[in-house]
Amino acid sequence: MMEKVKQFIEDNRERFMEELFEAIRIPSISSLTEHKGDMIRMAEYYKKSLLAAGVDKAEVMPTAGNPVVYGEKIIDDSLPTVLVYAHYDVMPVDPIELWDSPPFEPEIRDGKIYARGADDDKGQGFMHIKAFEALVKNNKLTTNVKFMIEGEEEIGSVSLGAFCEQNKEMLKADIILVSDTGMIAEDIPSITTGLRGLAYWQVEVTGPNRDLHSGLFGGGVANPINVLAKMIASMTDEKGMITMPGFYDDVLVATDKERKMLNKAPFSIDEYKKAIDVEELDGEAGYTTIERTGIRPSFDVCGIWGGYTGEGAKTVLPSKAFAKISTRLVPDQNNEKIAKMFEEYFTSIAPKSVKVKVESLHGGQAYVCPIDLPAYRAAEQAYEKVYNKTPVPMRSGGSIPIISTFEDILGTKSVLMGFGLESDAIHSPNENYTVVNFYNGIETIAWFYQFFAEEFKK
Amino acid sequence: MMEKVKQFIEDNRERFMEELFEAIRIPSISSLTEHKGDMIRMAEYYKKSLLAAGVDKAEVMPTAGNPVVYGEKIIDDSLPTVLVYAHYDVMPVDPIELWDSPPFEPEIRDGKIYARGADDDKGQGFMHIKAFEALVKNNKLTTNVKFMIEGEEEIGSVSLGAFCEQNKEMLKADIILVSDTGMIAEDIPSITTGLRGLAYWQVEVTGPNRDLHSGLFGGGVANPINVLAKMIASMTDEKGMITMPGFYDDVLVATDKERKMLNKAPFSIDEYKKAIDVEELDGEAGYTTIERTGIRPSFDVCGIWGGYTGEGAKTVLPSKAFAKISTRLVPDQNNEKIAKMFEEYFTSIAPKSVKVKVESLHGGQAYVCPIDLPAYRAAEQAYEKVYNKTPVPMRSGGSIPIISTFEDILGTKSVLMGFGLESDAIHSPNENYTVVNFYNGIETIAWFYQFFAEEFKK
Repeated sequence: MMEKVKQFIEDNRERFMEELFEAIRIPSISSLTEHKGDMIRMAEYYKKSLLAAGVDKAEVMPTAGNPVVYGEKIIDDSLPTVLVYAHYDVMPVDPIELWDSPPFEPEIRDGKIYARGADDDKGQGFMHIKAFEALVKNNKLTTNVKFMIEGEEEIGSVSLGAFCEQNKEMLKADIILVSDTGMIAEDIPSITTGLRGLAYWQVEVTGPNRDLHSGLFGGGVANPINVLAKMIASMTDEKGMITMPGFYDDVLVATDKERKMLNKAPFSIDEYKKAIDVEELDGEAGYTTIERTGIRPSFDVCGIWGGYTGEGAKTVLPSKAFAKISTRLVPDQNNEKIAKMFEEYFTSIAPKSVKVKVESLHGGQAYVCPIDLPAYRAAEQAYEKVYNKTPVPMRSGGSIPIISTFEDILGTKSVLMGFGLESDAIHSPNENYTVVNFYNGIETIAWFYQFFAEEFKK
Repeated sequence: MMEKVKQFIEDNRERFMEELFEAIRIPSISSLTEHKGDMIRMAEYYKKSLLAAGVDKAEVMPTAGNPVVYGEKIIDDSLPTVLVYAHYDVMPVDPIELWDSPPFEPEIRDGKIYARGADDDKGQGFMHIKAFEALVKNNKLTTNVKFMIEGEEEIGSVSLGAFCEQNKEMLKADIILVSDTGMIAEDIPSITTGLRGLAYWQVEVTGPNRDLHSGLFGGGVANPINVLAKMIASMTDEKGMITMPGFYDDVLVATDKERKMLNKAPFSIDEYKKAIDVEELDGEAGYTTIERTGIRPSFDVCGIWGGYTGEGAKTVLPSKAFAKISTRLVPDQNNEKIAKMFEEYFTSIAPKSVKVKVESLHGGQAYVCPIDLPAYRAAEQAYEKVYNKTPVPMRSGGSIPIISTFEDILGTKSVLMGFGLESDAIHSPNENYTVVNFYNGIETIAWFYQFFAEEFKK
């Protein structure tokens, strides 16, 4: 029955890839205001793609920020409804000099598509449109399908919560289907059952009102970089734990059984270290790397700047120092509570010799998906069909803040069918996506709909 | 006898200022390679100025780096010889957006010349050429005079040591005269009798071989910014002392008497705090601000950068973090010993999860000038003539590394007749120099020669 669908995907490989390339060529970087126009072009392109794939209607819907692309095909009100979520925005490309090919000119080398967004989330998002098209064009669609494709995921989905509130009825569905995560390896499929939350701030430390001569003033006036370094250093202790009082209060401590299951996922410390070229790993004492990045919170400075950063030696005691600071959160930490906690705490530990400003830039809740949901079982069987292996349920260290918002506002669970690999270098220079997973993903998603219709009836 | 000289200065005020402005307009930033051509233009301009002022000969002499401008007027071998040292290079202008007028287009507002180099050291250096001109043109020169004007002071006078070694005979003098320091206030003249030394490094901390997704890897891999912050924080303790073992071994501890004398200089904590807009001062416990910036070493991060520093929130665990770190040194600390000590120590405190590189960029010895030198006494009387007050001997926190090199190589002491004010904002945006000190300085320097010839005979 699905043979025709498989053949259709086979027959249209080149066209599917070319259409993805067209999407990639639009530099839809949501965090940079200079790309506002590209966001609109990108949304229009997705709308066009949905219409071509066979939705009944598609629309570019305005929000306070970048628009949401919505499309739907309702074949029978008595059938279950799947809401596909994806995002059309991408991360910035800096440091640009580390890319081997221009980030917005996709090219295939050694079986991988190299480009910003190749995986996250144009490659993975586009598979859904193509799987839907294959089902529609071969009369194999077994559920109603809705698409919601946003343009602000990389800046915290700032407008999507309000959009969901305002369009609850339109977005009604039995499950939300998302491909914005990874799998363990090309031959080891996995389904992400948990995501970490996130809180992200920018801090500004001001010392003197202007840059001072470090000879005339050095030693007598607090240096904002020295101070910021001390403040950041004090945020974690020698066991790798975050020192902010109350930070761990709501952390759900994993049971021994859960920890055992998690650590069954194939993982080689040596290969992991080799892949990122570090001699030693680091993290919270008493936890494995899988646990540290999956079920424990983390504290990372994502960026820091201040003073003279040019060539040579400028002897300056700078006026200001800045940092972008983030924590990854786990169930049941509340990102808004943590955001506020940090704002107050970080300001409180500043010495009187400086002024400190903390601004919350981004945040989201952690999420957990039960493995007995019909949609989870459907996804499991879909992977088995294409990869010939039962996917491993796993917890990801990443965050898709909007997933828990969906649950809060729409009351709908999400299943995260990810096809990315760790080597895809998302958010980094030379982001890539394997050609084989692009096509396998399309097929797996097509199977999902078949199994979901069956599982839902049970 | 000096009336004619004074009148000459009075009659030529406008021309002197215009000639200084011409010098300022050449953007001779020594730390930026793109200004190589400006360094040559600048040197040629100084040569032309020296010839016009009346030297017997002047030359732009090549070095491994920027050339040195040399000029001399030998009137009688039996008379003492003064070697004037100045520098024609200036600091970079970043952050350019904080300047109220373009840094290389000098303008006078409220009695101050605003421009990069207005004080440091074009304004102060140029006074010497004009004082010399006034004496020559009125037949009042009482000593032989040599000029050595270099173009690398702001990058550590990297070629001047070798230049002195190669030209010992040519540079032979009884005293070196330098105006590259400050005075306490426009109505409180002072002479700098001590300078701090300097050691300056750039450090690079490398974690993973590429920027990583802070969600997928955060908590499991050492973040080079977090690590750098901890390393910097650990360099100073809660008493404001530098923790590097051996750092204080050679520090000459000031006697109670010296400390009392130093603290006699007029100083208002409230005004100091207000001028730089800080609520509290900071520094080594048990010392006053004058002591902290004059006779005690300091540790300042002059610049820091790493990770994402653009607009918005990029969730990245960066590959690298950098800092420019400096210490000010005091007698008898040896800057080369400290440079090596830091390189070894900073590398030794790095955890195995990162790689650390330390590069020494700049350095110089501290210096002390005895107040019973004939040249010091001559300077004292010169200030008395113009300012009607005996100048206060004081220790400066700044460094002119070459001053101790002169003593080592040429065997010649220096007298530091500074006319800058703290509000001149040298090395900062809106650097300025008071018009009144530019003209008073010229007159004071002219007097110096008169008194020096007398004192030298005693």
